[in-house]
Amino acid sequence: MIKCETIYLDHAAATPMDARVLKVMQPYFIENFYNPSSPYLPAVSVRRDYENAKHVIAQQIGGKVGEIIITAGATESINLAFFGVSGHIVTSNVEHDSVLANAKNHENTIVLADSSGLVTAEKIKKAIKSGTQLVSVALANNELGTIQPIRDIAQVIKAERYSRLTRGDKTPINLHCDASQGACQLDVNVARLGVDMLTLNAGKIYGPKQVGLLWVASHVHLEPQIIGGGQENGLRSGTENVAGTIGFARALELVSEHRKYESDRLTKLRDSLQKTLTEALKNTVVSGHKKHRLAGHLHISFPNLDGERLVFLLEKRGVLVATGSACAANKGKRSHVLTAIALKPEVADGSIRISLGHLSTFENIKTAGEILIEEIKNEYKRVGL
Amino acid sequence: MIKCETIYLDHAAATPMDARVLKVMQPYFIENFYNPSSPYLPAVSVRRDYENAKHVIAQQIGGKVGEIIITAGATESINLAFFGVSGHIVTSNVEHDSVLANAKNHENTIVLADSSGLVTAEKIKKAIKSGTQLVSVALANNELGTIQPIRDIAQVIKAERYSRLTRGDKTPINLHCDASQGACQLDVNVARLGVDMLTLNAGKIYGPKQVGLLWVASHVHLEPQIIGGGQENGLRSGTENVAGTIGFARALELVSEHRKYESDRLTKLRDSLQKTLTEALKNTVVSGHKKHRLAGHLHISFPNLDGERLVFLLEKRGVLVATGSACAANKGKRSHVLTAIALKPEVADGSIRISLGHLSTFENIKTAGEILIEEIKNEYKRVGL
Repeated sequence: MIKCETIYLDHAAATPMDARVLKVMQPYFIENFYNPSSPYLPAVSVRRDYENAKHVIAQQIGGKVGEIIITAGATESINLAFFGVSGHIVTSNVEHDSVLANAKNHENTIVLADSSGLVTAEKIKKAIKSGTQLVSVALANNELGTIQPIRDIAQVIKAERYSRLTRGDKTPINLHCDASQGACQLDVNVARLGVDMLTLNAGKIYGPKQVGLLWVASHVHLEPQIIGGGQENGLRSGTENVAGTIGFARALELVSEHRKYESDRLTKLRDSLQKTLTEALKNTVVSGHKKHRLAGHLHISFPNLDGERLVFLLEKRGVLVATGSACAANKGKRSHVLTAIALKPEVADGSIRISLGHLSTFENIKTAGEILIEEIKNEYKRVGL
Repeated sequence: MIKCETIYLDHAAATPMDARVLKVMQPYFIENFYNPSSPYLPAVSVRRDYENAKHVIAQQIGGKVGEIIITAGATESINLAFFGVSGHIVTSNVEHDSVLANAKNHENTIVLADSSGLVTAEKIKKAIKSGTQLVSVALANNELGTIQPIRDIAQVIKAERYSRLTRGDKTPINLHCDASQGACQLDVNVARLGVDMLTLNAGKIYGPKQVGLLWVASHVHLEPQIIGGGQENGLRSGTENVAGTIGFARALELVSEHRKYESDRLTKLRDSLQKTLTEALKNTVVSGHKKHRLAGHLHISFPNLDGERLVFLLEKRGVLVATGSACAANKGKRSHVLTAIALKPEVADGSIRISLGHLSTFENIKTAGEILIEEIKNEYKRVGL
């Protein structure tokens, strides 16, 4: 379906599966189709391949294999992280819909991000109460690309946990981090991040769709949301996703291997595109944190234009960009993230999200820049600005 | 991994994906990878393909497309069917682990199946109380192959609903049927079955693993278990499983098309194998309903032998059979289904489950019969019986 001239600039919404990932999955569709719970050797061998893939994943994120729960994607992982938490929740107003929806089912404090979308450790600290059991902050914002200070936030949680322990208070407090966005470009080692739970999504890292994980440190008490056969240490029942997990492991290996190179490459491409656009189009507003921003992300607004119309005009020229978060994009409402960072309505409504990735090259980013400038200038002309 | 001489007789545990199913899925792994919620045409086209697949599924089961929730498999579907039910539950003692685990979280009545594994409509009727909100009975038992009288049970639920309505009682009562086992051989038209909720599993019908559905009649009030982006009419959030659903639809078309032929073919093969074994090996016990039994199922016991040992001996000869339900097989405990039908311990422990399917041919079933007889005779000799 990709026309040869298509320039895909929406890697934050979906990534094409890496051919090397699909290759390692293929044998498990037809040939090695056995149920990993069956007792005969070919099935035991499938189980071993599945467990090996989980070992690879554990190694990549610096966790233990028994701490990894394979799920059907980030949304399920997030729901599982929240399920069974009975206390107060702290999160921010720029989190993913599923984090906010789950937080609403609990007593909660929603910390306000600053105008760059950043959530500071200080604000998290102030929001924590004696009954707080879960803090959930994404590694990077999916719309703005702003990278959150997870290590600092983790220090706050650790200090609170220590303080509770010293005064004999057994109320647990844990930090969940949704690292779906950013795993291609940022370190997702759970020990270095200092988190207690981590969500990853294979579909955002050139792996298979509908595969995700929740890593849960062994000290965290979790309740299973889907019960039955007792798979995944009793925390997520259902026949194991063998092909998907094997693909996930390979995808994670590949992004880890190329993380430094790809991050540098995308930063250069993104910065040059940003420079081209902001120089050619005055009044342009770039959102997200100036320094702490994902390499491939460029959230850019053309005040008084219609972002949705821009998406369609650009599409006609073969350039695919997003209006906002893809999850919410089809509901015709303004993104809660843009509202959270207090972008003026005429700026917010003229926004597009450009996200670079594997399909981005020096050539197609240069071409995209030219097309963007042409179309946006035409639009400004059309509306008389 | 299948050795050319391998004879797979465990189709109830897992089925190899049909090559025609994999073929229709392939374009969605790499080429058509777009997020179906994105606004540009290639993504809209992916959404259309996804919706079309759901239309095909709806047509195959006789439901409406808006009533279908795509899940990550039967276990998730079953959990979703139970989630949000607040009243009394009626189910049977031969149901799948996930049905029993969910029932335990509610006030419940567990109806006892008869010695053939059959759950009668009369027993269900007696178990229904004024507060009963959900009845859950599988279409066919995964261990014995016994087919349940779902149409009769549906009549009981309809009568109870009518009776409640006439006396102004608004307590809902619905029938959920897990049709994971049997969809290859039995009609799964929801209107003809008369059910209110239906679970199907693509992985059991030569479709992709980790794909299932819950069909929910529009009059049923359901609570979402996984919340966030609002996909699947708000009942199951998370980016849609495009490739998986397209594969599921094709798999369902294929089994529907060949259902009559395949069912007749497998009945003949199974009956001949059963005859061969029971004639050659006296004392052999065949379990499950004599008449209402899935075409491919043969649950057979060799009293005083060790079923697990038989599985391994047969495997050495290239014949793959199950000891019991694959989900529970790896836990080394006696199957709750065999306990439910009051099989004597020495009979239950000498049981194997043979399940035929696409990989079964006249030739390999004949060979399997010969190997089974040899190995079982040897075992009887070894233990001095």
